[in-house]
Amino acid sequence: MPALFERHLDKLTKAVETCRTRASWSGWPENPSSKIHGEELPTAGKARFDTQLGQAFDLEQPAEVGRLGEEVSPYTREALGISYPKVDIETLYEHIAQAQPAWTRASPETRVGVCMEILERCGEQLFENAHATMHTSGQSYVMAFAGSGANALDRGLEALAYAHKAMQDVPPTGHWQRQFGRDGVADLQKHYRLKPRGVGIVICCATFPLWNAYPALCASLATGNPVVLKPHPNAVLPVAMVVRTARDVLSAAGFDPNLVTLVADTRDAPATQALLDQPATAIVDFTGSPRFGNWLENNCPGKLVYTETAGCNSVVLESTNDLAATARAIAQSLCQASAQMCTSVQNVHIPADGIRVGDHRVSYEEVASAICAAVDGWLQDERRAATLCGTLFDDAVQETVDRYRELAGNRALRDSAAFAIHDFPKARTATPLVIAATEADRDWYRQEVFGPVAFMIRNADRDACLADATGNAHDCGAITSHVYSTDESFLERAVDAYHDAGASVACNLTGMPINFAAAYSDYHVTGLNPAGNACLADLAFVANRFRIVQAKYMAP
Amino acid sequence: MPALFERHLDKLTKAVETCRTRASWSGWPENPSSKIHGEELPTAGKARFDTQLGQAFDLEQPAEVGRLGEEVSPYTREALGISYPKVDIETLYEHIAQAQPAWTRASPETRVGVCMEILERCGEQLFENAHATMHTSGQSYVMAFAGSGANALDRGLEALAYAHKAMQDVPPTGHWQRQFGRDGVADLQKHYRLKPRGVGIVICCATFPLWNAYPALCASLATGNPVVLKPHPNAVLPVAMVVRTARDVLSAAGFDPNLVTLVADTRDAPATQALLDQPATAIVDFTGSPRFGNWLENNCPGKLVYTETAGCNSVVLESTNDLAATARAIAQSLCQASAQMCTSVQNVHIPADGIRVGDHRVSYEEVASAICAAVDGWLQDERRAATLCGTLFDDAVQETVDRYRELAGNRALRDSAAFAIHDFPKARTATPLVIAATEADRDWYRQEVFGPVAFMIRNADRDACLADATGNAHDCGAITSHVYSTDESFLERAVDAYHDAGASVACNLTGMPINFAAAYSDYHVTGLNPAGNACLADLAFVANRFRIVQAKYMAP
Repeated sequence: MPALFERHLDKLTKAVETCRTRASWSGWPENPSSKIHGEELPTAGKARFDTQLGQAFDLEQPAEVGRLGEEVSPYTREALGISYPKVDIETLYEHIAQAQPAWTRASPETRVGVCMEILERCGEQLFENAHATMHTSGQSYVMAFAGSGANALDRGLEALAYAHKAMQDVPPTGHWQRQFGRDGVADLQKHYRLKPRGVGIVICCATFPLWNAYPALCASLATGNPVVLKPHPNAVLPVAMVVRTARDVLSAAGFDPNLVTLVADTRDAPATQALLDQPATAIVDFTGSPRFGNWLENNCPGKLVYTETAGCNSVVLESTNDLAATARAIAQSLCQASAQMCTSVQNVHIPADGIRVGDHRVSYEEVASAICAAVDGWLQDERRAATLCGTLFDDAVQETVDRYRELAGNRALRDSAAFAIHDFPKARTATPLVIAATEADRDWYRQEVFGPVAFMIRNADRDACLADATGNAHDCGAITSHVYSTDESFLERAVDAYHDAGASVACNLTGMPINFAAAYSDYHVTGLNPAGNACLADLAFVANRFRIVQAKYMAP
Repeated sequence: MPALFERHLDKLTKAVETCRTRASWSGWPENPSSKIHGEELPTAGKARFDTQLGQAFDLEQPAEVGRLGEEVSPYTREALGISYPKVDIETLYEHIAQAQPAWTRASPETRVGVCMEILERCGEQLFENAHATMHTSGQSYVMAFAGSGANALDRGLEALAYAHKAMQDVPPTGHWQRQFGRDGVADLQKHYRLKPRGVGIVICCATFPLWNAYPALCASLATGNPVVLKPHPNAVLPVAMVVRTARDVLSAAGFDPNLVTLVADTRDAPATQALLDQPATAIVDFTGSPRFGNWLENNCPGKLVYTETAGCNSVVLESTNDLAATARAIAQSLCQASAQMCTSVQNVHIPADGIRVGDHRVSYEEVASAICAAVDGWLQDERRAATLCGTLFDDAVQETVDRYRELAGNRALRDSAAFAIHDFPKARTATPLVIAATEADRDWYRQEVFGPVAFMIRNADRDACLADATGNAHDCGAITSHVYSTDESFLERAVDAYHDAGASVACNLTGMPINFAAAYSDYHVTGLNPAGNACLADLAFVANRFRIVQAKYMAP
């Protein structure tokens, strides 16, 4: 058994097992508290990040033809000043081609072991990664440590577990004997080898740079494909750190580090098309805008394309026994990471005649008010507000908020405003803008409005709420959907309607962050609506990244 | 446990197990002999076929707007006179849409049980199917009974076993508990449901009408997708029989029979494009020409496309201890089903200075002669020749042979000629044409020459043989490849070279029909060269035909 595989076997086994039970488990710590980690680790991570600022990122990668980098911290509004290699893609691919054969020949267990070690080593830089993520994608420290740290690593391990399962399904050998007619028994030894597709490119997004990076990296690399990571120009550092770590692990394991490379680019000179144009590029993993994701899905014939994009996530509010708890749950989603998550709620559908709360009828206005009040509740404490909301990753998000403020006019139920973050007086922040809408405003809400903008949509009745929400999920995509109802039969109908629209649904979630998508338990993205064509993670995410060739030998 | 699932569970379990061991097993009889089956079954099968001739095929299918049918027996050269429904595709899809919801709701086990029953019932009409296959695709009775019967059914069961495995990988429920901060424990019940993609269309080929029909039918139908079978105009009857049986089984199981339908067409008015144009069509399974297969792979964005086409299958002859046995094995491939199989050998590469046989050097000319003599040997007995070669399924095959006879001129090492089939004096037959070629003739042999035409290619030396053969596999496709060598190191190099070209390879096969591809054991088609993008069968063939939606419920 390869050493790295053996070293990490317990954890891998636990991951495979948890994919089966779908229970709660995390392979990494989600809480950055010094009470757990002591003072040293957090301090060292921060120091490493600080030291990186203004420096060339040390990545010994071939085909470097210059340097680039345009990251600006959403907290300090200052350029990070970090430069990354600008690479000649043609030349890089020549190096990748040289790296490939030995990796193809390596056993699946060897490759899985290397991927496990990469995840482990990335897990050791969670503190540094948290600061890198804060100052690129704008997440709060706590969110950056957990969501873009442990949770993303878990998704990576989950994808790796599936890749391992899919590869294990192909036995290395077989023995086959049978008689044909009057000839003697034909006796064949058969050897089955797994072959990669080619180069996998991973296009990462700005707000959760590692959310699909780890799963795509693991899924492609474990199955034998070299991987090129193409970060968003706003959020290169967290990805570059993964690439450096992966290269170190590969080298230490005796492989060519060019199996994992970084192609950073700038907004003015994007590199994606050049990567797609490389004949060796066989796999594309993408997280980002629905528009580009859809383009990729339809314009890469002969390549495997896995997308996770976005939609207009909805809540259907029908009834509840605890309006305060429900409002609090929804409000948290409107605030969390300034609604820049793929699981953030945007459209809250409320019947025109209100909802039933226990034995009472509560009007649309009162429900909307309760949600707005709950938002205010979450934001009351300055420190908690900062932890919950983080910052806006880009000026474009503020522009979106401003545009909708103007559109909404006096229909804003809750205005958006900057809020203070103690340590970062220049931070780009915005509290949720909440807008009263009707179906006449469908143009507003039948799309992803990226950032802290939400609509309290007054539909005719509960069935109209459900029809609008599920129709939007079907036509415009949805990654998460929520229903609140104490009416069993309505709940059942709602679940069916969301499922028929190709969407998953959560029912009556309170007392937890409803945006939370759990690795090993929640199949993330259905692939049945415009918010993406792939799931993190299932067998379909991995099974086609490799193919099978066989050699059969007749016994002499 | 659903009744049909329970009834067939032992057989399904055996199939799943055999996919793991890759051993030899068949779920159906491969030998039509009356010694095994008695007189009654074969006679009844023949009688049912005879009764069908000249009659409307009884298929109670909606959307019928007329009748069509243009099958002509390659044995009698007479029209079968069987008419099939001509359907209005738009209307048919409306009926399919009505059938779909109940099938989607049915449990995976229910659907797998129905598919098992369909295969079993098709297994009961193997004799009738053998005659139907003979008189459409032109196979001999024995081949039609086994290759298009048992072997194809086994491929269907194999695909079904993989579909079952992939669906079983998704548990129906999960229980998830965890604490977030100071809130109480979040306690979620999660339900996971499988959702089909849409309608699967299966485009069958003329020479092995059921070879991909059963696997594609089972893979799509078991995972919840209604299936439309589109047979080749030359070979509708075997497919129509499967459709009728599937519809009977579905009805008996309480489902809408329109989950499986037939869209027959004619050469002058093909229906495939209209099926592709239906928005509900989500999956395309294709067996046929590389040209159309490649077009499908590149022009169906958003649809899943699985192809098995063809290439230029090769033999590299380097050395052998038994030239007679080797020549006999290769010659059988040149003869079998008149080389109209996707596994038929076409290009035999022989070093210019000959091969080593035991301790001797045998010249190119002697090797080629030995193969031609072995062909004559197989054809010596009239009855055996007819069983081995069958007929040419279409005039076009004879035209191809004639064209190459003309091209070859005096370089024909063995001329093609008609041979007699006792019971069918008008049968369209042709023995193998064997042509001496050099690399100057690459235009001839770097493509599939469909029918009994083979090239004895004189390459400079053994390495040139290997380079030519594997280069062709890479560029032009290959489904089977063979190497004969007693030199361990050459064999190893050859296996690597074929694998690097994306091809599987068989080493030193003699004493068995080398065209034979074994269900549960041979991964058929690698998907890594132009001869197709999919494998019959592996997890990748099934895992993406369904998606997963989930509902999570917080405990009240």
